[in-house]
Amino acid sequence: MKIIDVIEKKKKGNALTEEEIKFFIDGIMKGSIEDYQTSALLMAIYFRGMNIDETTWLTKYMVESGETLNLSSISDNIVDKHSTGGVGDKITLMFLPLMAASGIYTAKLSGRGLGHTGGTIDKLESIPNFRTDLSIKEFKDKVKKHHTAIAAQTLSLAPADGKLYALRDVTSTVDIIPLIASSVVSKKIASGANHIILDVKYGSGAFLKTAKEAEELSKVMVEVGKRLNRNICAVISSMNQPLGRAVGNSVEIQEVIEFLKGNMEPDLKEITYTLCLKAFEKTGKFKTKEEAYKYLDKIILNGEALEKFKEIIKSQGGNTDIINDYSKLPQASIKYEVKSKYTGYVKNIDALKIAKACKNLGAGREKKSDSIDYSAGIYLTQKFGEPVAKGETIAVIYTNKKDQVKDAEKMIVSAFEISDTEPRKKSLIYKIIN
Amino acid sequence: MKIIDVIEKKKKGNALTEEEIKFFIDGIMKGSIEDYQTSALLMAIYFRGMNIDETTWLTKYMVESGETLNLSSISDNIVDKHSTGGVGDKITLMFLPLMAASGIYTAKLSGRGLGHTGGTIDKLESIPNFRTDLSIKEFKDKVKKHHTAIAAQTLSLAPADGKLYALRDVTSTVDIIPLIASSVVSKKIASGANHIILDVKYGSGAFLKTAKEAEELSKVMVEVGKRLNRNICAVISSMNQPLGRAVGNSVEIQEVIEFLKGNMEPDLKEITYTLCLKAFEKTGKFKTKEEAYKYLDKIILNGEALEKFKEIIKSQGGNTDIINDYSKLPQASIKYEVKSKYTGYVKNIDALKIAKACKNLGAGREKKSDSIDYSAGIYLTQKFGEPVAKGETIAVIYTNKKDQVKDAEKMIVSAFEISDTEPRKKSLIYKIIN
Repeated sequence: MKIIDVIEKKKKGNALTEEEIKFFIDGIMKGSIEDYQTSALLMAIYFRGMNIDETTWLTKYMVESGETLNLSSISDNIVDKHSTGGVGDKITLMFLPLMAASGIYTAKLSGRGLGHTGGTIDKLESIPNFRTDLSIKEFKDKVKKHHTAIAAQTLSLAPADGKLYALRDVTSTVDIIPLIASSVVSKKIASGANHIILDVKYGSGAFLKTAKEAEELSKVMVEVGKRLNRNICAVISSMNQPLGRAVGNSVEIQEVIEFLKGNMEPDLKEITYTLCLKAFEKTGKFKTKEEAYKYLDKIILNGEALEKFKEIIKSQGGNTDIINDYSKLPQASIKYEVKSKYTGYVKNIDALKIAKACKNLGAGREKKSDSIDYSAGIYLTQKFGEPVAKGETIAVIYTNKKDQVKDAEKMIVSAFEISDTEPRKKSLIYKIIN
Repeated sequence: MKIIDVIEKKKKGNALTEEEIKFFIDGIMKGSIEDYQTSALLMAIYFRGMNIDETTWLTKYMVESGETLNLSSISDNIVDKHSTGGVGDKITLMFLPLMAASGIYTAKLSGRGLGHTGGTIDKLESIPNFRTDLSIKEFKDKVKKHHTAIAAQTLSLAPADGKLYALRDVTSTVDIIPLIASSVVSKKIASGANHIILDVKYGSGAFLKTAKEAEELSKVMVEVGKRLNRNICAVISSMNQPLGRAVGNSVEIQEVIEFLKGNMEPDLKEITYTLCLKAFEKTGKFKTKEEAYKYLDKIILNGEALEKFKEIIKSQGGNTDIINDYSKLPQASIKYEVKSKYTGYVKNIDALKIAKACKNLGAGREKKSDSIDYSAGIYLTQKFGEPVAKGETIAVIYTNKKDQVKDAEKMIVSAFEISDTEPRKKSLIYKIIN
């Protein structure tokens, strides 16, 4: 088999066979296919697409290109939840303790992604001494003991995807649905859980800009996951506005703790509870929304969920004092209040603008080697639908970069859209693909 | 400017600007653009195309990427003729002496191309001692003195095209009209002639398989050439059957000499005379076909054209005895007659099959470093439209490879299509694009 024939075949719009896709992934791993041939094939895939068979084979051979985590000694009922990423997205940090408190196993390996604000691992590392560099043995032991653990990904999961992604990133071939699907699903499969819940976002603050694209991607991911014997679903939700009020790292940890103390922002509650419901359905714990939501309310109100979060922090070496004393979390030297220029109702808060402002304040990284200022972030004192008066505080900036405050203020002001009339509230959930 | 933005722009179907195309070619030459980025862009161009502005800029900056030949000290009226390549295509070798005998300057730099049979340079080198490795000074001096010279290309003409071509060859991005057009026209412009006649072939023995593709390519080449101030045209003709009766190297030289002696095969005459007519029109020597053809007949019948060919051979060091003694040309040890299996009329001779047979007999090369057996080749004793009886000789094989004779015989027999009725003769010329 020759790679040039595979490129030509895809270029002409034909579907590749399983053998051809295996040959391609093997060639990438062995180095026998040149990068310039891979990028030509990727661009041909952009134009010609891949059918569900091809996408499944691609995912399968990406999984087989590296290590896989075997969690079967713990349980046959392990849930993994994955978000495609959003602004203020701290859902995992509420989902995990809620699941653990419910007796459902979750095992979360997370990449230290790039982005405007830190990833889940970065958020957790803003808790003093919290360890995410767990060995595989430690990780498994903790999942067994506490029903959950969260670790920075150190295994070489689906390395073919890593190689492909590095090339896609520099050849304008990132936005290809079958390749995104394979990338996400291969990592989830290699991570070992048998139930997979995908939290797929669309909107200004997400990678995918429209609900249509999110639905298309979700359908592919769910179908591929099923074909590879996973119990998988996707919850599609809007990410046009930040999730919750806190965007950053330690400010988000505070919001998570408040949530688990019962002070739940409605948007965080909607998404978190929906994902929990899917996990309950998959593992057979509850069948109806009513039962599930009643139970979740209960374990939040009686403190069980918060206690579980404390247990996770303790298990991974973190300082549990932060639960009741937020001053033990990294504190920014500057705290600056942004005021509204208008009177009215908050009609929209552009998630992307808030994210960019956050990054400039020090909360995100551009290169993998960049360090993060855990204390930097933005707290939105006013949210969608809330009334605001001219001169009233709409957001608080936390940073150690004095010279960035004015620019961030401008960006936050421009992110807020104020209207004369009260906007109608809508559900964030767009659709669920089972 | 970033190359990824240029790729993205083309991927989305937008036209590139002159600055972007210059940036691309500069980057290829400087090595600041990676091959995997170039190949992604090439594949995007396959799907999105390039408009005539983009193709013109691409051609212009490919010309500027290397050296150019300045022939203005010789004449402002210099003709260059370029064939896209065919089987038995020896037209250049008749065109040049006819032009020189007519007092029209031609200057022919030729690549030592790959292919089933040798290129023009290889054919000439089958003449003992014929030198094609002329220095630029020698080349110009000879053009000035004899009205023509032919040399192997040693200047680095349009090197960006060379780099692009090497990549296209291994990434399935050869068949892209604007890139083929830029490649051909950039080399012709860098070669210094102001009148350019393109001999564009289509059919089984040509790179382009259909008349439609040939016409599309021709239109682009002619428009680009005009925009870059060349007096350019394209003659499109069929290459479904070999041109003339001889295919190989020294056998083709014999056929050229016979032609110049007045024994003109009709197909060779049609193409050669048409190209000569275009050159006469461009240089203003004759305006009508009648005048031109009458004149060409005259200089062939009175021996002037043959004399000119002899002069060229002498000027470039070759043995002129070959003109009247073909035994002085390389001779194959094996001469094998292929017989017809049927009685009827020759309805078709598949050019590609004849070419492949020729290559296996030793007449072509696969890699640039391969050597050619100048004596190897095929002579078609029967041609299109001619009657043939079962058992009668239809072709003669010349080779030194005894083990290849049987396979070549099979291939030749399968190349011949014999019909019961006499097929209707058609002009080879499909269209002329001015």
